[in-house]
Amino acid sequence: MSWIEKEEALERTFEFADFIEAFGFLSQVALLAEKANHHPEIHNVYNKVSLRLSTHDAGNRVTEKDRKLAKAIDKLSSV
Amino acid sequence: MSWIEKEEALERTFEFADFIEAFGFLSQVALLAEKANHHPEIHNVYNKVSLRLSTHDAGNRVTEKDRKLAKAIDKLSSV
Amino acid sequence: MSWIEKEEALERTFEFADFIEAFGFLSQVALLAEKANHHPEIHNVYNKVSLRLSTHDAGNRVTEKDRKLAKAIDKLSSV
Amino acid sequence: MSWIEKEEALERTFEFADFIEAFGFLSQVALLAEKANHHPEIHNVYNKVSLRLSTHDAGNRVTEKDRKLAKAIDKLSSV
Repeated sequence: MSWIEKEEALERTFEFADFIEAFGFLSQVALLAEKANHHPEIHNVYNKVSLRLSTHDAGNRVTEKDRKLAKAIDKLSSV
Repeated sequence: MSWIEKEEALERTFEFADFIEAFGFLSQVALLAEKANHHPEIHNVYNKVSLRLSTHDAGNRVTEKDRKLAKAIDKLSSV
Repeated sequence: MSWIEKEEALERTFEFADFIEAFGFLSQVALLAEKANHHPEIHNVYNKVSLRLSTHDAGNRVTEKDRKLAKAIDKLSSV
Repeated sequence: MSWIEKEEALERTFEFADFIEAFGFLSQVALLAEKANHHPEIHNVYNKVSLRLSTHDAGNRVTEKDRKLAKAIDKLSSV
């Protein structure tokens, strides 16, 4: 599975074994986001994490910033 | 501001100074939730965290489990 | 590598690719620890995390509580 | 209480109500550290967190990088 582009955003849902695995991933996403100063919209229900990337400063569309953060997230060993 | 009951769930939105404060809060909520074995639906956009508490095993309605976790979250010093 | 028993405690050092991977692991350990109501001594330097498990209530020696938490940590997918 | 300078490092111990409060703080420190690309040595035992800041690239002495990160940590609302 990969990121899909819709409504002017990149979206991807990640599914884990349980909440502990999901939150470990979320902590890593938080660190990548704060470092990049670019924060995804995060939605979590138990073992599922949905991320939505969009660049507000650019009028809510997908920019290079979003693609770069999506790639960094995909490289995490927890994915 | 406090929790509001709607659509058979308790909901509350928390607003912080920035993402770092919001994520510190979210980490604490994660610990309370895992300990209670009862996990809220979490939605985060930068400095805002929305939580939704409902008991799925009881047919998606608000039970004592939800009220107890809501109270524990309200007692966090970061709130 | 595995846990070693010394000075009346179980100890293990985990090494990761970078701080982000190390902190993702640490978040998971925190959740397991709070759930078990049994907390390891944690030491972190960049990509290294050292954990030390001992039961204070039992006079600082290794008990079943420590072995159980060590096993739960070893089962994390990030390890 | 404040940071003390010893053995070529800035050190400070923070004490919280419990592990949940301590870990919320630690998550915020992690975000500040990754953002600054400068990571403290972290030691945690239940409700206590000890941080040690030193600049390895400068021969393990205290530099402006350490003072800057110490100040950012002191500004966290959880402190």
